[in-house]
Parts: sequence; C-alpha cells; structure tokens
Amino acid sequence: MGTSLRDQGLAVKAAARELAGASNEQRSGVLRRVARELAEREEELLAINSAEVARYTEGGAGRDRLTLTPSRIASMIEALVNLSEEPDPLFELVDERRRPNGLVARRIRVPLGVVGVVYENRPNVTSDVAGLCVKSGNAAFLRGSSSALESNRFIAGLFRAALVAEGLSESGVSLVEDVSHETAAEFMGLTGVIDCLIPRGGPSLIRAMREHARVPYVLDGDGNCHVYVDAPSDLDQALVIVVNAKTSRPGVCNAAETLLVHRDVAPEFLPRLVEEMPEVELRGDEATRALVAATPVTEEDYAQEFLDLILAVRVVDSLEEAIDHVARYGTGHSEAIVTTDEAHAETWVRRVDAAAVVVNASTRFVDGGELGLGGEVGISTQKLHARGPMGLRELTCVKWVLLGEGQVR
Amino acid sequence: MGTSLRDQGLAVKAAARELAGASNEQRSGVLRRVARELAEREEELLAINSAEVARYTEGGAGRDRLTLTPSRIASMIEALVNLSEEPDPLFELVDERRRPNGLVARRIRVPLGVVGVVYENRPNVTSDVAGLCVKSGNAAFLRGSSSALESNRFIAGLFRAALVAEGLSESGVSLVEDVSHETAAEFMGLTGVIDCLIPRGGPSLIRAMREHARVPYVLDGDGNCHVYVDAPSDLDQALVIVVNAKTSRPGVCNAAETLLVHRDVAPEFLPRLVEEMPEVELRGDEATRALVAATPVTEEDYAQEFLDLILAVRVVDSLEEAIDHVARYGTGHSEAIVTTDEAHAETWVRRVDAAAVVVNASTRFVDGGELGLGGEVGISTQKLHARGPMGLRELTCVKWVLLGEGQVR
Repeated sequence: MGTSLRDQGLAVKAAARELAGASNEQRSGVLRRVARELAEREEELLAINSAEVARYTEGGAGRDRLTLTPSRIASMIEALVNLSEEPDPLFELVDERRRPNGLVARRIRVPLGVVGVVYENRPNVTSDVAGLCVKSGNAAFLRGSSSALESNRFIAGLFRAALVAEGLSESGVSLVEDVSHETAAEFMGLTGVIDCLIPRGGPSLIRAMREHARVPYVLDGDGNCHVYVDAPSDLDQALVIVVNAKTSRPGVCNAAETLLVHRDVAPEFLPRLVEEMPEVELRGDEATRALVAATPVTEEDYAQEFLDLILAVRVVDSLEEAIDHVARYGTGHSEAIVTTDEAHAETWVRRVDAAAVVVNASTRFVDGGELGLGGEVGISTQKLHARGPMGLRELTCVKWVLLGEGQVR
Repeated sequence: MGTSLRDQGLAVKAAARELAGASNEQRSGVLRRVARELAEREEELLAINSAEVARYTEGGAGRDRLTLTPSRIASMIEALVNLSEEPDPLFELVDERRRPNGLVARRIRVPLGVVGVVYENRPNVTSDVAGLCVKSGNAAFLRGSSSALESNRFIAGLFRAALVAEGLSESGVSLVEDVSHETAAEFMGLTGVIDCLIPRGGPSLIRAMREHARVPYVLDGDGNCHVYVDAPSDLDQALVIVVNAKTSRPGVCNAAETLLVHRDVAPEFLPRLVEEMPEVELRGDEATRALVAATPVTEEDYAQEFLDLILAVRVVDSLEEAIDHVARYGTGHSEAIVTTDEAHAETWVRRVDAAAVVVNASTRFVDGGELGLGGEVGISTQKLHARGPMGLRELTCVKWVLLGEGQVR
C-alpha cells in the first residue's frame, strides 16, 4: 500500500498545480454543481449513510456525528452555495514595495497546494472541507474514518464529477480508501506531497500528529475556554453569555468549560446562574460551594474540556487572578470577559494569550461561519500560519514576485 | 538535565509574556544598548572568539563561519541599529469587520511568544536572531553549537544585561548551555514552551527536525535555485544575472545551482558565459557539451545544492520544459527567469511554485535585508506561516479580538 498512497498523493499534487491555475468561475462552478447534485441525490446519500449508521457498533456521540439528516444535508448545500458566492481569495496583491535599486517586490496570494485533512466520523466534513479547498484553489486530500467511508466516497464522488465537468482533474478531491491505522502515519508523513495537514479530532489524533507528522501541519487543538465575570459587570448580560457559552452546544470546542467569577459579584451571580441552567453540573472551589450546590472541583477539572453539561467554577479575587488562571489552564482557544470596566477589558485583550479574546459576548462566536470567513476547516490553537478559525484566506499563502531590469547584488 | 531544560524554557515563556507587553521604546532600547556594548567590548569578544577558533579542529567552511572579525561585528552592530529604527511590528490592526449582529471582530498583530532557534557555528546569528526576536516582542530561546558556546554566551549576555537595563527579564534572551546531541531532541520537543522553532542548518538538521520536533516549526530548507535564460532575452543582462547568481556568494541558499537555457540562445550565450566565469565548473547535458566544455551532468547534480563554484546546465526546448524542470528539481526557494517576453514572464510568475519567483534579476535578492524586512531569521521554503525570508512581521501572529454588547448565539 505504501507506494500506492504516495502515488495517489502525487496525482493529487498534479491536480493541485492545475487547480491553482483554474479561474474563480471554474472553482465556484464546482461548488454549485455539487450543491445541485446533493439536492437531487439526497435520498441516495441518506440510504448509503443509514446503512453505515446501522453497521456502526459504537455509541452515542460517534453515532450522532456519523448520521446525515435532511437538515444536515441542507446545511452542507447552503455552505457550498454561500462559498461559491464568496469573493475569490486568490491572486490578491498583498503588498508591493519598490527597493532603492528599482527592484519591485510584490507578494501575491496563492493556494497552499495540497491540503490534507484527517477527520473522524462526520461525513459533512467531507463536503465542507472539499468546498473550502476547491474554492481556494487547493486540492483536498481527505482521510476520513472507516465508519463513514461509503458516505464520504459518495460526497467526494460528486466533487470529482463536478471537477471534471469544469474541465479539471478529478484528483483535486481525493479520498484515502485504506483508512486502517497503519496508513495513518504514512499519510501524515507524505513529505513533498502534502503542503498543509489539518487534523480534526480529539486528543489521541493530536498526539498521533505530533508523533507521526513529517509535513507542515496546523493543530486544531482542544478548547478549554473560560468566561470571566468581572466586577463591575452587567450581571444580566453575564448570565445570558455564560448560559449560552456553556449550554448552546456543549460538545464543541468553543463552548465554555470553566467560569471564573469575581468575589464581589459571586454571591449575587452564582445563585442566579444555577436557577437559569439547572441541567448543568457545577464543580466549584470552596468559595463557590459556600454559595451554591456544587461538587468539589479538582486540578483535572480545571485542565479538561468536559464537552458536556459540566462547568468548573472558581471565585477569584481580581482580574489578575483570572488572567493567571487562564494562562495556567487555557489551551489558547477562546477566552471571554464580561465587564463594564473598559480598562479591565483592555487589559484582558492585551494580556490573555489566545486565538480569540472576547469582550461581552459568547465564546461560541469563535467560528469561521460566525466571523464571516466562508466556513472553516478547523480552529487553530497554535500561533503559526493561522490562529483561530481557518477559512478561505487561511488556506492560502503568499509568494514573492520580484520584478527587475537586470539588477544584481 | 531533562527537567532543567524545560524549567529554563518556562522561565523563557514567562519572559515572553512580559516582553509582549513591553513598549517599542523598551524593545528598541535593548537593541541600541547591545549595539553600544558590542562596539565598546569588541576586543573582549574577539579574544573569546579567537580562543574558540583556535580550539576548533574541523576544517574550512565551519571554521570560517565560527570566526568573528571586526567587520563581522560591525555588521552585527549595524543590523541592530537599523532594526531599532524599524517601525514597531506589533499591535497593528490587521483588519476589522462588524458582523450583522453588531459584534466587532478585529485582528491585531501580536508576538509569537517563544521563538526557538537551532543553529550552527555562526555566532553572529545569536545577535541577529535575538535582535529580531526582541524587536518583535518575542523571547529568543537559542541553541547554538558547542564550538561557538563562549562567543554565543558573551553576545547573549549583552542582551540579557540590556533587557534588565530596560526593566525586563533577562530570560527574554536565553541560551541552551548543554548543547550535546542528547538535548537536541528534547529542545525540539518542548511543547507548551516553544511557539515557533526555526532551524538554521543543513540537511541533517532538517531531518532531525522532521523526526524530533513536536512543536510548530518553520523549515529553512535547501535552496536549489534555477535561472532560466529564455528566448527572447537580453543576453547581456542574462550574463550579468547568471554570473551574479552563481558566483557572488556560492555558499548561500539563494545562489543559483542550475542554469536552464533556451535552445535558440544557447549557442551564443553559453560560450560567453564560460568566458565570463572561467572559475566555475559546468556540468552539462549533451546539448550543452556540444557548445562548451563541461562534464556530463547527472540526475543527482540537478537535484543537489552545490553551494560551490559548480553549475549544472541544461538546454531546454521551451518555457514549458523549463517550468517542468523546476517543478521536478526545485526546492521551492527562488526561481528566476531572464526574458524580454512579458507573457513568458507572466507564465513563469503564475506557474512556478516557489517562495520567490524572480524576473530579470538575481536570485540573490531573496534575502530579508535586501527586501527591506529588517533582516531575517531564516528563509522558509515551506508554505505555512512564512514563505521566503522571515523578517519582523513573520515573527508575529494575529489574535482575534471580539467586542460585543452581550451577543449570544
């Protein structure tokens, strides 16, 4: 299989060179075609998918992620149509400078080339990621999970047919068919083929990436996100924000996991919060437990992403203490403050080191769609290349163009 | 030693948080102080360095790189003074958008945090890299070679004293003291400490990085650079450019390694080239050898960086063939065309996939100083984060700042 995965990769690479030269019309045309086909062949896809779901032996969250529904397919279609209407992310003149010797140095925006994505059950990721890649002139090299192979193959097939219909190579969207564990490391080691590897998955995938990746990658890491309710703050606003950040979709990375609350407002705020979201289990420090019912919080609780209706709570003495807590336990994803003090907000923005710092809003806005990036292939928690949601622009790089008239050094 | 390298790293990380909050005045002040001290204590540094050179048992290029001279120290000083005068690269508002719900989403430029650099003999790198890091608000965590340890320690010491004099922590510039091979992998694996690792060295260092790095890194890879002399082209101009690209400093990564020349101009061009640079050994294909004296070229020659006064030469039938040759053998560094045909130039710029594409100028301009980036910490041949010379801007990242008035999703 070794040779064949690399061979497949080389075909993807050749397709990437071609896609880089395709017009925005062609690239957007691919997306529109797939959107149409998805609508027309929805029943077919649902049948393939429900057979896969029926064969799936594991439980809860995995099964839910694997399952396509008419509404999920509608979202896939909508995302593709919206993406097709986005302005062309390519060939923008990023900057230009004329050097003293007359040399003109430009930077222009170009595709990355081959974007490799490793993901788990969700077949909708196939459509979302392939759409973003094609729109940005990149080839998508996709490695999904074995449980979703049939659904993924169907969706990738629509893209491949649409690429051909637009006069492009079908290899521009390619699916790894052998998704055994043995090929994972090989896929992550395809140097000279994959220009950017993006893992979308849990801690074990991230560990595997750190171990096996030999190509450049962007980590879509954990989101241990905090909301800090400051004194002074508008507690009605704080209530709405904390409830939204914790409960609107607890299983996603931009959901809040720990609440920090200033000592001065905790006695009023915490009982109101409990009343507002009784379904959430609180794990609190001593000061919290003196005010509301909560199980004792542990170091591990502060450090983990619950991805569930559980919230760690700590009462702090100061903004300083809140910032220190976030520096210690945060994963650099999204960190919110609720405050009416502008200087406190400014301090938070300056000093908290995260992909996104949020003032008086829910952490849930840290999302490519919500921020108008045309969707996202993931949310980067590292600092290189992309930080936060990775949309169309984050799937590009710049190339220097030096224009001379015979200059030498 | 394991614990102590990580402990040192945590101190560097704490210093990075502090440096991120330092003013441009403080950061530039550090550079000015080091420049002054270098000038005043030049004799001391030269003495330390010549003792190291005397102990150095290996030959030529390594010894030369290790050696500091008054003129090299003058260059270090000049670089620091120039950097201190560069505009502040931090806190620029990169963009701002207001979402339909009123949320304001900004991106602002912030430091990366801890920049780790692994490098070989050259002690001037210590000064250049630490200067760029401090100016851009990053802490520099430096791992030089054992042969240059004393010189590096002296230079880093000047930075540490200058940081303290500006009211900052001396850990902002830290040198790894145990530079044994055992600690290399450990250094490259300092997750949670190093935000960006930059290797400056040859293929063996790059291999070690791919194997051992567990932190985000930017590869400063090989430069197998080409110059293609097109038909039609101005052969006088082509001559000057090829000679400059090959001979002005053959040991650096932006020097030319292979000349591609169009069949129509080869009979006139190649004999003139040989006359112009008789000191260069040519390795040519059959068509070349029919025109000038050259040893037969091999596949390995096309694929390698000679870093010496050797040039591979191939006669091509078309622009197309030149582009294909570069796609096959190039390392994505700097690729030049000499042409008087604008459409050919445009095709080259669009289709050659490299950090820098150059039209009618020497590849030697692909350099942070030459392009006005305030110097460089290396030249990236990958596409993520930075491509080409990494200057001040490439030592920064962006952070999302979301400003709301209670918005929830």
